[in-house]
Amino acid sequence: MSTDTVCLAAADLSELAVGAFIRAGAADSDARETVDILVTGEMMGIPTHGMIRVPEYIHRIGLGGINVAPDIRVERRAAALAVIDADNALGPVAGMRGLAAALEMAQETGIAYAGVAESNHFGPLAPYALQACARGMAIIIGSNATTTMPPWGGAEARIGNNPLCIALPNPDGAHFILDMAMSVAARGKIRRALREGAAIPEGWAVTRDGRPTTDPAEALEGFLLPMGGHKGSGLSQAVDLLAGLLPCGAFLTGISSWVENPGAPQRIGHFFIAIDAARLRGPGYGQAVREFLQIVTSTPPADSGQPMLYPGQLEQQRLDAALCDGVSLPAALLAEIKELSQ
Amino acid sequence: MSTDTVCLAAADLSELAVGAFIRAGAADSDARETVDILVTGEMMGIPTHGMIRVPEYIHRIGLGGINVAPDIRVERRAAALAVIDADNALGPVAGMRGLAAALEMAQETGIAYAGVAESNHFGPLAPYALQACARGMAIIIGSNATTTMPPWGGAEARIGNNPLCIALPNPDGAHFILDMAMSVAARGKIRRALREGAAIPEGWAVTRDGRPTTDPAEALEGFLLPMGGHKGSGLSQAVDLLAGLLPCGAFLTGISSWVENPGAPQRIGHFFIAIDAARLRGPGYGQAVREFLQIVTSTPPADSGQPMLYPGQLEQQRLDAALCDGVSLPAALLAEIKELSQ
Repeated sequence: MSTDTVCLAAADLSELAVGAFIRAGAADSDARETVDILVTGEMMGIPTHGMIRVPEYIHRIGLGGINVAPDIRVERRAAALAVIDADNALGPVAGMRGLAAALEMAQETGIAYAGVAESNHFGPLAPYALQACARGMAIIIGSNATTTMPPWGGAEARIGNNPLCIALPNPDGAHFILDMAMSVAARGKIRRALREGAAIPEGWAVTRDGRPTTDPAEALEGFLLPMGGHKGSGLSQAVDLLAGLLPCGAFLTGISSWVENPGAPQRIGHFFIAIDAARLRGPGYGQAVREFLQIVTSTPPADSGQPMLYPGQLEQQRLDAALCDGVSLPAALLAEIKELSQ
Repeated sequence: MSTDTVCLAAADLSELAVGAFIRAGAADSDARETVDILVTGEMMGIPTHGMIRVPEYIHRIGLGGINVAPDIRVERRAAALAVIDADNALGPVAGMRGLAAALEMAQETGIAYAGVAESNHFGPLAPYALQACARGMAIIIGSNATTTMPPWGGAEARIGNNPLCIALPNPDGAHFILDMAMSVAARGKIRRALREGAAIPEGWAVTRDGRPTTDPAEALEGFLLPMGGHKGSGLSQAVDLLAGLLPCGAFLTGISSWVENPGAPQRIGHFFIAIDAARLRGPGYGQAVREFLQIVTSTPPADSGQPMLYPGQLEQQRLDAALCDGVSLPAALLAEIKELSQ
């Protein structure tokens, strides 16, 4: 792929991508929901989960791997519990149903859980969190994923590099949005290194037989390493229990890889726990958040040239800049999306 | 402290420690609740948060740092939200009120959050999770703590090594209980190395001026390192938001150190999110959990001599062994507890 980049307005990029999804058979509102998540991710500086996914999702639609006419069913299990069968929908369409259910129930009960089963890759988590925070809700989001790591001490990939997001609304500015996966580095970063012919740092991955490697090709055939060893491994399993097992979905090796089986449903699961933050803390909520974030950002930095940031702050700055200056992306990727839209 | 160890029955050890807390002024039921958490932690193999805390808590009671006659107030903010002002109670007494509130509300609404403010060190998290799991509830528990780490990129301690626990009941055997803190290694392990005159591994901590160190004394004056760099740092902040800020409590540098100010309230906060697990998954719950744990434990091990375990399994084995064979602890610690009980 060429390394030339182009820049265009977010609205124009979105229209192109929406057109591509509609042409692939998606309903207009589903196409918009999907593109909104991916474009927002791209603008937040998460390109591994941004527009690069447009052709990938559409490729899978073409193979019958994603259902563009799903019958999504929401089942209420308790006042604050819902389970959603996404019927193999586009991931962001499934995810947005989960988010909406959790936010709606939490308005009444104060906290609520929605679990989504039978979904697909649903983009980065931060754009969902952004929507929750904009409505004054704190949120915890997680998803299982294709197995790429062994459980700690193992020699076969049986856990996913599952993402976890914890976010809290900030009435004054950038929301606190922590969006992280369990590996030391993202698999997408290793794929990018492979495309660019670059080596990867030590400590990111091991080869198939457990040897440390800086070769992205060897790493992709081997395993990602979890952060904190047994801690990241355990946290990945915990996220899978909440995202896969609890909402009656698939888990661990039950998740299908879109790389190896693009034409098969992935059976991915997500969970959303929404919490009415301001209702808990009460009238002093905004002041407390301001004080909290001020304590973090006023920490003396180890490197005086580097400003101290809290999670989500840099992503909001990038989002604001991209809304103003346009979205940069590889020219080849834009050409591909254009072609898919025509 | 001598390295001699003694072994005695859990019930006898508990009675001694309960007597010590009662002698220090605690009510009988509060003493039992506190000791139950600490003895269970000791038996699970978490001695840094076990019986060693008995003389420490009692020392703080003597200095007026912990209130043995608290007026604990539970405020219901919504059907599934409660905020508890613990009035500087013994940590485990405060924690057990939070756990009980979360479990009770979740019986009705399916999921519930209880936040506890104005508490103290409350022992390890796993014993609380064990009680939730025994009642069929999944649970997420977190707490803030004395600041011992800089936010990522910083050069001053402003975040705690906050513990996070995620647990899911297993109807067939050891519950899934992940109980982890955010640093690569626990501060208690560094204190133990100092007592034993041992060096600590590289990567655990840096000195006050940011230099890597293997000297436990230098490490205790310096900073613990978070797992995954910015990830562990961000997760620590997220736990503090849920445990400190949301339930109207103190956070970050607002938490007081029991080492530096044993006579002052610590102002620690905890949170408990209980989820009615079996209600979500339905009748196939037990079978799904069995399958999940089987996939993890049947992974081919990297070292054929090491069995593959899921989080909580080793702790349950230790607990079962200690219930059968008795609890081992340093002779000097037992002597200290005995003296406090007389």
